[in-house]
Amino acid sequence: MSNKLFLILLLVMGSVRLQAQENTSHQIHLMPWPQEMKTNDSNFSITEDFSVFIHGEQDKYTRISKAAVRFIRYMTDKSGVFVTQGFPNAKGVAASSASLHIYVDTEANIMMGIDESYTLTVTDTGMEIHATTDVGAMHGLSTLLQLIKADKGGYVFTGIEIKDEPRFVWRGLMMDVARHFMPIDVVKRNIDAMALVKLNVFHWHLSDDQGFRVETKTLPELYKKASDGLYYTQAEIKDIVKYADDRGIRVVPEFDVPGHGSAFLTAFPELGSKKGMTYSVERNSGIFDPTLDPTNEKTYEFLDTLFKEVAPLFTDVYFHIGGDENEGKHWHENPEIQQFMKENKLKDNHELQTYFNIRLEKILAKYGKSLMGWEEIMTPNMPKSALIHSWRGVNEGMQPGESLIKAVKNGYQTILSNGYYIDLLLSVEDHYLVDPMPDVTLTDKEAKRILGGEATMWAELVTPLTVDSRIWPRTAAIAERFWSAQEVRDIDHMYERLNTVSQFLELVGIQHLKSQEYLLRNISNYQDTHGLRQLTTISEPFKIYSRNAGGTQYKTYSPFTLFADACIADAKAVRSFRKLVDAYVDQSDQTVKEDLMRYFKAWGAIADQLKTIEPHAPLVSRVIPYAERVGEIAVISEKAIENKRISEEELQRLKALLEQKEDPEVNLDVELAVTKDIMKLAEYLAKN
Amino acid sequence: MSNKLFLILLLVMGSVRLQAQENTSHQIHLMPWPQEMKTNDSNFSITEDFSVFIHGEQDKYTRISKAAVRFIRYMTDKSGVFVTQGFPNAKGVAASSASLHIYVDTEANIMMGIDESYTLTVTDTGMEIHATTDVGAMHGLSTLLQLIKADKGGYVFTGIEIKDEPRFVWRGLMMDVARHFMPIDVVKRNIDAMALVKLNVFHWHLSDDQGFRVETKTLPELYKKASDGLYYTQAEIKDIVKYADDRGIRVVPEFDVPGHGSAFLTAFPELGSKKGMTYSVERNSGIFDPTLDPTNEKTYEFLDTLFKEVAPLFTDVYFHIGGDENEGKHWHENPEIQQFMKENKLKDNHELQTYFNIRLEKILAKYGKSLMGWEEIMTPNMPKSALIHSWRGVNEGMQPGESLIKAVKNGYQTILSNGYYIDLLLSVEDHYLVDPMPDVTLTDKEAKRILGGEATMWAELVTPLTVDSRIWPRTAAIAERFWSAQEVRDIDHMYERLNTVSQFLELVGIQHLKSQEYLLRNISNYQDTHGLRQLTTISEPFKIYSRNAGGTQYKTYSPFTLFADACIADAKAVRSFRKLVDAYVDQSDQTVKEDLMRYFKAWGAIADQLKTIEPHAPLVSRVIPYAERVGEIAVISEKAIENKRISEEELQRLKALLEQKEDPEVNLDVELAVTKDIMKLAEYLAKN
Repeated sequence: MSNKLFLILLLVMGSVRLQAQENTSHQIHLMPWPQEMKTNDSNFSITEDFSVFIHGEQDKYTRISKAAVRFIRYMTDKSGVFVTQGFPNAKGVAASSASLHIYVDTEANIMMGIDESYTLTVTDTGMEIHATTDVGAMHGLSTLLQLIKADKGGYVFTGIEIKDEPRFVWRGLMMDVARHFMPIDVVKRNIDAMALVKLNVFHWHLSDDQGFRVETKTLPELYKKASDGLYYTQAEIKDIVKYADDRGIRVVPEFDVPGHGSAFLTAFPELGSKKGMTYSVERNSGIFDPTLDPTNEKTYEFLDTLFKEVAPLFTDVYFHIGGDENEGKHWHENPEIQQFMKENKLKDNHELQTYFNIRLEKILAKYGKSLMGWEEIMTPNMPKSALIHSWRGVNEGMQPGESLIKAVKNGYQTILSNGYYIDLLLSVEDHYLVDPMPDVTLTDKEAKRILGGEATMWAELVTPLTVDSRIWPRTAAIAERFWSAQEVRDIDHMYERLNTVSQFLELVGIQHLKSQEYLLRNISNYQDTHGLRQLTTISEPFKIYSRNAGGTQYKTYSPFTLFADACIADAKAVRSFRKLVDAYVDQSDQTVKEDLMRYFKAWGAIADQLKTIEPHAPLVSRVIPYAERVGEIAVISEKAIENKRISEEELQRLKALLEQKEDPEVNLDVELAVTKDIMKLAEYLAKN
Repeated sequence: MSNKLFLILLLVMGSVRLQAQENTSHQIHLMPWPQEMKTNDSNFSITEDFSVFIHGEQDKYTRISKAAVRFIRYMTDKSGVFVTQGFPNAKGVAASSASLHIYVDTEANIMMGIDESYTLTVTDTGMEIHATTDVGAMHGLSTLLQLIKADKGGYVFTGIEIKDEPRFVWRGLMMDVARHFMPIDVVKRNIDAMALVKLNVFHWHLSDDQGFRVETKTLPELYKKASDGLYYTQAEIKDIVKYADDRGIRVVPEFDVPGHGSAFLTAFPELGSKKGMTYSVERNSGIFDPTLDPTNEKTYEFLDTLFKEVAPLFTDVYFHIGGDENEGKHWHENPEIQQFMKENKLKDNHELQTYFNIRLEKILAKYGKSLMGWEEIMTPNMPKSALIHSWRGVNEGMQPGESLIKAVKNGYQTILSNGYYIDLLLSVEDHYLVDPMPDVTLTDKEAKRILGGEATMWAELVTPLTVDSRIWPRTAAIAERFWSAQEVRDIDHMYERLNTVSQFLELVGIQHLKSQEYLLRNISNYQDTHGLRQLTTISEPFKIYSRNAGGTQYKTYSPFTLFADACIADAKAVRSFRKLVDAYVDQSDQTVKEDLMRYFKAWGAIADQLKTIEPHAPLVSRVIPYAERVGEIAVISEKAIENKRISEEELQRLKALLEQKEDPEVNLDVELAVTKDIMKLAEYLAKN
């Protein structure tokens, strides 16, 4: 199906699909939501006889065979069923009697734009997946896995017919492994999670001021001097590329140049723009000055040597060269660079960087790679083959996605990350409603240049222990944005399904829930974690980089085992509490009073519980002032709702408590996520 | 210090040490317990100024530097302190002002028998570690880490003076990665845990009937046909060897031959003892017949090729060749083999296996390796250089450790594993009191041949998800047996410390606690896990191989996500309940009545809670009959203790309930671990 025809069909089918979304919202918790879907009244039961047959399959090590084995293992782990056949196409099992039939036309070469469509049918007599490519069939398996549900007497697959394909070809997750190194197993489990939600680009941010993470045999100084021993061997990189390929996922590596260059210049100071400077691996967060010297021929020799060796480790055609946030301070200060600019008629830093990028583009081309970079690379002379990664927005004084529109109008292909910065720790709904397709009139040609988007997991404030809880489950909702129809944007429905997908994420290995439990055990020094857990349900880590403001409180080796690290961007109780407040205030629904009071009672008891464990848990002491504030808020609120009124004095006290900033010495770095709801309730009661 | 002098000193100092053990048991939770120790009244506070100085250190990538970095990270994670200096020997920090000084004479070559001693001093002004080798100093760091405790206002290191060295040179953990493959990250985190408790041999059981786990370039059929794609690349093996070496740990690989040969023969059927047989990778557990043909010259050519390629991947001198459980059925059945035996005057299978082993010993010697094997290799002609791994005991119709005594009397060096089979899922105390030094008179020379022991983690019934909870924390107590003085054997003190070491095990990455939480979430289908968790505190998985009796219920790909997998060998409430019962019955202590009743009340409520979640959790249905039995037991017991009497009828009912075997259809595979305590209580009440 051509993209255009498909878009038209989408418009026609929109209402049908949305209706389906409504009808089945309480049974089907798929994420991403399929393009077309029809439930039937049957279920397929998971029993010992379960078997998989891949039609036309000869080799047990093909991509789809291995995916089928993983599928069986996940299903078994989830359901506890002792299947007799642990592998597809088992000897002695007649093809005709298989539970799940998989039909695939061809094995894909993993690259941008391959056919990812599939159809899936589940009835009470059998299940079938049909796909042009094995990648499509694997998407079918990811969907099927999410269709497992508990039924009377056992686990079943929900009866359904699905016809599905992605809206965008580029559905990415970027992991920054420079700020905090992420070991191979962390990368692998996140790739498994990507496959579960049909993301297909793993963007690997491999260098930054805080480290260079790739073994290089021709330039060993890079990893020896600028990684603290934390880097990937070439064998490991090839292993990851293969691991991703096995799951239909492209790997796009990034070396960030010419800025973000502290690690490069720690190894090769002679390539720096500030002569005589002693560069060192950065331990803080922020934007730093070390920048490669674009006027030095040795810089290009170095980059040629580097890409010559590293490019072949990756199979994808794209290599991301960063190019962002170069403020050019060292360029300004260096008279030789200024002289070079004059001689070459480069009127500003931007033109100098263009000069650099264009030379880099030629080096990449020599090694079979196409250049992509953050939006700053989009300058008049940049070849149209370059891919523009749109990222800046309000925080950077720009309109969100401004560069995306500019890119497509200038003839560049582009992807969007503005709106998908999951390290901002915003609520999932803030990301979910951002669409890669801007709300402006574009020609078909222009629209087609928007390839998709990427969630970006910058790692200044995450470690291998916490990174899963920062990426997931929110990124599943972003994955839906990239895959599903534009009209799928019901927030309640999304949240409901997100809760289920979170469980499947744990099934495939994501440690978001496990890590929170561990962090609370550690904070409590292995005492009762009840109060701490309660507090996490209404507390969210500081958002939009207000944790570690200035970039110097936290160093790369600071502890990320604090209460803020145990809290997540969408605290668990916030939505249900908000719904109660809304019902009480907006609909004057008195029946929710008891539920509200239960919340307040629970919150009011937290500080006392924490005090019982505090004597043996120094980290709890830091939490108690906050818990006491929450407790006083809860007590005033409870009394107010019980009495259906609040005095002016109490209201002022409540406001003061709600607006109180954390004691800077405590550095708890969390905010009370129900603040505005309690305020709403209090103001309503004050008016009564 | 010579071993002999040290042993004499031990005898002299025994009482002093035991006294110290008593005096400080409530402050110091070290495991293994040091040889000599004296606390002082001071503590060293962990503050932002904390720094480490390694004297004479030049290179930041030496073993001890890397260990110091790990130490700082662990300390930071545990304490939440933002240290200014994240690395040892930080620039600008005067050596004299460092918090922790490390003095090391030499960097060791990791091999058997190196000096592992250290001394450690902690006062309120500073800390020092002195050691002959860096390995000794790393042991000092492991001790120091365990000295972190909560104090008023923050975390501190306990003031202490320690002089320490191991009792045995061989302190091992065997991991079977053939029955269930264990990925690299699982191996690595277990090596980190070994370092924490000063184990120093990682024995890697790399082949068995269920799989061959090593990439081989000369014999690729092995991993291609007999691993299901689950194997270690050579790069990964070298990485693990290096990782272990960095932690002072030797890696001893094992290929189990000539029995346990299904994987070998799946790849090379022509080497099998049964001609024309179609071999395949085994999916069940048990002892199987496939055996290499020791009369076929091609067998030796094959082994020569294999060891030539694989031996250099490992740096240790020992290569374990298995040699166990060859029942020789296929040898008996093969007339050519019988003919060969006649011609070569080999009177039985045992002699034929000796012939095989001796040829294998020469192949290993060619590639610089010494042979070790399970005790069956000990035959009259076996060279004395072979190391005998004693394992059989009561289960195999032998006296425990019988072969160990025979070995040392015959001039062989030996290590003990009988008594340390942690896959039996026995209580930790059953392992803790087993000593490698047998209770018989040995000459000094003979005693010195006992090198130590190994805990063995056979993997028929464990997966990457559950293996940590099967190894830990119990193996920490076994590690103490191998390290500490023989007289350190106070069970209560061990349990008390085991609980603390369990927390440090989680700090270094062990997932025993995380996995249990996850398994309960999965069983409950993400509902309230309260009742399930309660039930795990008194339920233990079937012991001594009575789970999966016959080896056919569970296949390698069966689910290990069941209630039995969430239970552990030492259920959490058992010891405290037992102490209450003992106090009540043995000391007629009536004050514990309320505590006992609280337990019974809690247990009596479990089934009802489970029924509330059962409708949406099929796996809970399997647990409910057991929970109901436990509930009825609890109700009868509660009533009995409340009334201080039990009727004959109730007593009989209670006995019937306690003795009731599980419904085989339920296959819950757990036992109620407080059975005999409740029986004791009931019989006491019946007599009153």
